[in-house]
Amino acid sequence: MGENYLNSLKENASDLLDDAIEQLKGYLSIPTISAQDSAIPETVAHVVSMIENIGGETKVLDDLGGNPVVYGFFAAGENGDKERTLLFYNHYDVQPPEPLEEWNTDPFTPTVLDGKLFARGASDNKGDLVARLTAIKVLQKVDGGLPCNIKFLIEGEEEIGSPNLAPYLQKYKDLFKADACIWEFGGKDEKDRISMVAGIKGMAYLELTCVGADIDMHSSVGAYVDNAAWRLVHALGTMKNASNEILVEGFYDGIVDPTNTEMEAVKKIPFSEEAISSLYGLKRPLITTEKGVDPREAMVFHPTMTICGLESGYTGKGAKTVLPKSAKAKIDCRLVPGQDPNHILSCVQAHLENHGFTDVKAELINGQKAYRSDYNHPFVAHVLKTAEETYQTEVVLAPNSAGTGPMYEFGKQLQLPIVSTGIGWVESKAHAPNESIRIKDFEQGVVHMAYMLSGFSKALQ
Amino acid sequence: MGENYLNSLKENASDLLDDAIEQLKGYLSIPTISAQDSAIPETVAHVVSMIENIGGETKVLDDLGGNPVVYGFFAAGENGDKERTLLFYNHYDVQPPEPLEEWNTDPFTPTVLDGKLFARGASDNKGDLVARLTAIKVLQKVDGGLPCNIKFLIEGEEEIGSPNLAPYLQKYKDLFKADACIWEFGGKDEKDRISMVAGIKGMAYLELTCVGADIDMHSSVGAYVDNAAWRLVHALGTMKNASNEILVEGFYDGIVDPTNTEMEAVKKIPFSEEAISSLYGLKRPLITTEKGVDPREAMVFHPTMTICGLESGYTGKGAKTVLPKSAKAKIDCRLVPGQDPNHILSCVQAHLENHGFTDVKAELINGQKAYRSDYNHPFVAHVLKTAEETYQTEVVLAPNSAGTGPMYEFGKQLQLPIVSTGIGWVESKAHAPNESIRIKDFEQGVVHMAYMLSGFSKALQ
Repeated sequence: MGENYLNSLKENASDLLDDAIEQLKGYLSIPTISAQDSAIPETVAHVVSMIENIGGETKVLDDLGGNPVVYGFFAAGENGDKERTLLFYNHYDVQPPEPLEEWNTDPFTPTVLDGKLFARGASDNKGDLVARLTAIKVLQKVDGGLPCNIKFLIEGEEEIGSPNLAPYLQKYKDLFKADACIWEFGGKDEKDRISMVAGIKGMAYLELTCVGADIDMHSSVGAYVDNAAWRLVHALGTMKNASNEILVEGFYDGIVDPTNTEMEAVKKIPFSEEAISSLYGLKRPLITTEKGVDPREAMVFHPTMTICGLESGYTGKGAKTVLPKSAKAKIDCRLVPGQDPNHILSCVQAHLENHGFTDVKAELINGQKAYRSDYNHPFVAHVLKTAEETYQTEVVLAPNSAGTGPMYEFGKQLQLPIVSTGIGWVESKAHAPNESIRIKDFEQGVVHMAYMLSGFSKALQ
Repeated sequence: MGENYLNSLKENASDLLDDAIEQLKGYLSIPTISAQDSAIPETVAHVVSMIENIGGETKVLDDLGGNPVVYGFFAAGENGDKERTLLFYNHYDVQPPEPLEEWNTDPFTPTVLDGKLFARGASDNKGDLVARLTAIKVLQKVDGGLPCNIKFLIEGEEEIGSPNLAPYLQKYKDLFKADACIWEFGGKDEKDRISMVAGIKGMAYLELTCVGADIDMHSSVGAYVDNAAWRLVHALGTMKNASNEILVEGFYDGIVDPTNTEMEAVKKIPFSEEAISSLYGLKRPLITTEKGVDPREAMVFHPTMTICGLESGYTGKGAKTVLPKSAKAKIDCRLVPGQDPNHILSCVQAHLENHGFTDVKAELINGQKAYRSDYNHPFVAHVLKTAEETYQTEVVLAPNSAGTGPMYEFGKQLQLPIVSTGIGWVESKAHAPNESIRIKDFEQGVVHMAYMLSGFSKALQ
């Protein structure tokens, strides 16, 4: 530890940077779209070889269904602490790239422009895995070995809600045993502050479908034939009102109130409506501004109900006078600790039934519970402190993120503190066209992980 | 006239049938999709050659914008009445064929199966034009010439709402001058009754668009960022309620009450909820049944507001957690006499504004006024009587159709009675996948048009 040591890590990270970016480009070229079942075996082989190439052991776990889970292991070096283990959680799958026409570069042809690397998965989450592997290379070079054991769990279904991860964690909880975990993601906000989280929201991703007829009809029958699109619109209208209040009975059941420490932590999160509004080009004020709610509290402590997609009938150019046979909505509810995705589904189904929309069917596409780590664990303080020293900038640690991941099962099976940090930036555009990372952020992320690992064992004593 | 004469027409129609179907197949092979600006010049040339090949004169009118209007003229023969002219209205454009995956045959590879001809446009409206040209050939063969002058107006923008037809009708009203008009379409109902109309509903086809941001966002921001899809859902919910009542203020302005004769005519229209429900595979009762309204009155006299399409965000397979930047709805309002599409647009715009949806923009994609002919004109009786003699079945004539066409401008500029009849059948699936006609209906339609033309002049004396 110390300034000289940190500088040595920085120099070595800088030396390894070009090779690391080339390695990342190769990884990003694979279109690992789990929602479309694309390129899974190639990606697994690629991840295995990246780990083995720098001396790690691997196991490909595929005995419990779903896309394989890759286990990676690097033993502590001669001078390292063989009793301590840090676990990294990453995923090798990415979101679908659509709408393709809005990408300035091909999503699976990684392209460096103006210090940024553009590709689907650059930020979420392939870039982070390569940064962490590069941190291991830096430590191997600087120290001749690793300061503790390091494990990886790299799954391939995060972007479809990790539907098969829980059984793997349960069966292999001894294999993945560790003292603490660094989670998937994180990055810099609009003022280059480091933003980290010690927990995560859950999710209930629902698909609502209304079928009105067996075939599309000429719209002239609209005088007497009911319309699936109108039915869906009215059903949705009963679930959330125009003031953005969720009206589904039972939706808020079981929510765990935040602790005072968590409430205080949230007040330290910086937030600028102006910056958010300009970042996305918003046309209206924030919901929270209209309601007089603190947007930081909403972000961390309030569940959501978001329409992610609507589809019915003719959506092409010009006018087609059709009365559509069916209509569909995709709805993403972000959940907070205490909420259960299966209960949310039941509540929505009961709500539709009670409001007379028996023709609107709800299905749970994926469900995950929320999780918050113990905010007072020394590991949390260690990650914070090493981030401040590495980045020399303000570091913010929220009790949980606004985003989602399968953290709940980690906490339940492995019983460890979890902090999420990563190499994204405010315009990373995860899940949207033109996803990117800044190469400088990648380099700093490498240094932070190497530095954090070097002091990890001592911090936990 | 008389039974022998009718039999002679039938024999000659039968002789010409195979050639006519081949000619129709050639015409249907052209993908004349006006909404997508596809194959317009080829189709115009094809229509011109079909008319000229049987001795007609043509003019291609293209001096007033939009797709060309084809004028066709056949002079009365030596024994015909040179003082009387019948005008046929047809259109050469078709609806988009989407959704393509639901067609059992290629929409532009006309295919005969089990006595039916399947292709986009078979029923709406290419089949009718070829039937009418074949009727002319029958009369030429049987009588050696035509019983009256015959004109055609064949336009190429009917499926996008005939936005440019009015100026052509105004400028060329002397060219198209006639004593009566046979309109585009018609056919047989589920009990093989002939269904005709003496008028037509109008249309206001609107596109509603809500833009919430410049880019699609990760759905985790849904805790504080408003959602264009929710905004559109709530805006639509204020325009029509779940009981299918249109709530837009001013929507019903100016509606002309039906006359007693028209009300009586509507009571003669056969209607079976069971048949309609089984035809389309409906999952719910008819709107009219729920409201206790006569569905025939709704069909003829009530305006509609139909969602033809909804689109927002991700609509592919699986889950994409996106907060969409925009949402769009296509809405088709079928209008009755007295309503004005531009007024409907203004009312919708004012309604959105008044309900706080200033971020939802309404645009009129196409607008047409409704029209009803004089139900008591002798031409109407002549078309009815010749239909009964030709088809030997029940004939129903409604004051206006539930569908739409540019009839209002014909009535205004040409001042003539109009009856619509054609060669469709109850499962023609106009505007939907697997559009078809039955070849026997085509043949009977040829005979009816020849027979109607033969007595036309005398009926009007």
